Amino acid sequence: MTARPVILTGDRTTGPLHLGHYAGSLQARLARQDSHDQYLLLADSQALTDNAQDIGKVRRAVIEVATDYLAVGIDPAKTTICLQSHLPALAELTVLYLNFVSVARLERNPTVKEEIRLRGFGRDILAGFLCYPAAQAADITAFKAVAVPVGADQLPMIEQTNEIVRRINAAAGRAVLPEAAAVVSEVGRLPGIDGRAKMSKSGGNAITLSASAEAIAAAVRAMYTDPGHLRATDPGRVEGNVVFTYLDAFDPDRAAVAELKARYAAGGLGDAAVKRQLEAVLQDLLAPIRARRRALAAAPDHVLAVVRAGTERAQARTEATKRELVEALGLFRL
Amino acid sequence: MTARPVILTGDRTTGPLHLGHYAGSLQARLARQDSHDQYLLLADSQALTDNAQDIGKVRRAVIEVATDYLAVGIDPAKTTICLQSHLPALAELTVLYLNFVSVARLERNPTVKEEIRLRGFGRDILAGFLCYPAAQAADITAFKAVAVPVGADQLPMIEQTNEIVRRINAAAGRAVLPEAAAVVSEVGRLPGIDGRAKMSKSGGNAITLSASAEAIAAAVRAMYTDPGHLRATDPGRVEGNVVFTYLDAFDPDRAAVAELKARYAAGGLGDAAVKRQLEAVLQDLLAPIRARRRALAAAPDHVLAVVRAGTERAQARTEATKRELVEALGLFRL
Repeated sequence: MTARPVILTGDRTTGPLHLGHYAGSLQARLARQDSHDQYLLLADSQALTDNAQDIGKVRRAVIEVATDYLAVGIDPAKTTICLQSHLPALAELTVLYLNFVSVARLERNPTVKEEIRLRGFGRDILAGFLCYPAAQAADITAFKAVAVPVGADQLPMIEQTNEIVRRINAAAGRAVLPEAAAVVSEVGRLPGIDGRAKMSKSGGNAITLSASAEAIAAAVRAMYTDPGHLRATDPGRVEGNVVFTYLDAFDPDRAAVAELKARYAAGGLGDAAVKRQLEAVLQDLLAPIRARRRALAAAPDHVLAVVRAGTERAQARTEATKRELVEALGLFRL
Repeated sequence: MTARPVILTGDRTTGPLHLGHYAGSLQARLARQDSHDQYLLLADSQALTDNAQDIGKVRRAVIEVATDYLAVGIDPAKTTICLQSHLPALAELTVLYLNFVSVARLERNPTVKEEIRLRGFGRDILAGFLCYPAAQAADITAFKAVAVPVGADQLPMIEQTNEIVRRINAAAGRAVLPEAAAVVSEVGRLPGIDGRAKMSKSGGNAITLSASAEAIAAAVRAMYTDPGHLRATDPGRVEGNVVFTYLDAFDPDRAAVAELKARYAAGGLGDAAVKRQLEAVLQDLLAPIRARRRALAAAPDHVLAVVRAGTERAQARTEATKRELVEALGLFRL
């Protein structure tokens, strides 16, 4: 058997996952379980970089996210689910890499810059946030991941990781670390049910994977459509209409969606009818996930055992990389 | 037996130790072996913050410094000698603490500021250098050290450590970490043999602890005295005269030194006579250290075993602190 390429991805543990995660990443992860040696990092340390004031949320989300993974069909026999804070090699490589990147370079990172702007941190950003690209480089390289799924806006992060890789390899005099390739998702980001660009639990515009049948129905009823489409007989706009965006993302019957779009655009199809179709699709999608989630919630020891076993596997891999790096760089080894 | 107070000190592993270390810190460490639970950190990770381009030097110095410790009389049964890079909890706490200190605060640290100025780093300082106060806080707190020997110029470092301690304790809701007190040395910094303020191997003005009898003689001959003291009969200056500074530091016969000073100041005592006295003192001091150093160099496995045993002890202590911190902060624990 040929070695499957190593891919690293994961989620900051700040809350349960939602439909946006399903469309943007979970589906792709399910599809890669046989083709890739896939590691899913429960990024609790990284979650602290801007949630140090609410550690309880970060802690509780560890098991929530792991449960979501298993509920959607991640198979721990194929994919390794592991906990960032329990992989000391990641912290050790982070501290090492900080000696191979300048403050000015970290400040120039466009992702960091943009996040600083969005969050209004200014000069008072926490050091952990500024240093986050070095921590991400540590994550990626400790697993020797050659593929890293990212949004298009995160390409500079991968570039910065590879800069550090090249510096380390230059210091070692050989290619001890592989460069990573960004895997940019073709799926656009799923908007919130209110039409805002980003679905988020804190934004109150998300449908979580554990949503009840009633919550799904209510969310679809409240969903943003075309504010100019007042009567069913009027022509309606499909672009920017969240209901159609969701149908594109989740309805497996492409032809039916295309027909609905044509009828809606021409006039003669009411929002209620389109929403009925979407609700049916979402209920079908989420019912088995919710059922598995419920079964898993009744067996918390099982989820914990999965995370523990995956973390042990990840420890072995990341410790091996650290030892190799110590050797290659000529650091002292007791 | 009452628990001895924990004190943490150590040296960056960038080269063998010299007389400046002996006067400034090693003597005090010897004196504290019974009164304190003393940890000596071989700071190889910290040495990388400005020696990443010469890792070989940092690696070689690990055993050199450990050998120096044993040669001067550090007793590994009383004092723990341990290797920073092999204590993962230090890196883990560093990464954690970066979430509790702002970039602006790190930049305001006077020690960092001054070092940046001295080294001419400007904005291009390495991130590891900027983050060094967080790493030092990790070292101190991981050992739960309550006493930390520092130079007067390093007081802001201890203050910054205690700021982080207070933030962590506030987040934990209880005093999980003790604050550390600076132990400021009463001994002034020993000048180089050329009279420059700092003795350093790279400055070429040091007498190493392993110096041969000939090297000691040559160094004393070359030593800076009073440039205005041209004839033995002239009155000479004692202040700023390196030979007298060294006699003050190393000659146990205080009365004899006082008499030499009086005669030198009055006129009638030549440099050669004072230097003879100093050379005798230094030969007496360094001969047994050199002999033990030679014996240790012939038994490298012994030195290695000492560092290994000390590092294991330190691992137990620092891992315990980390676990306690994880618990107190409410982080996830597998």
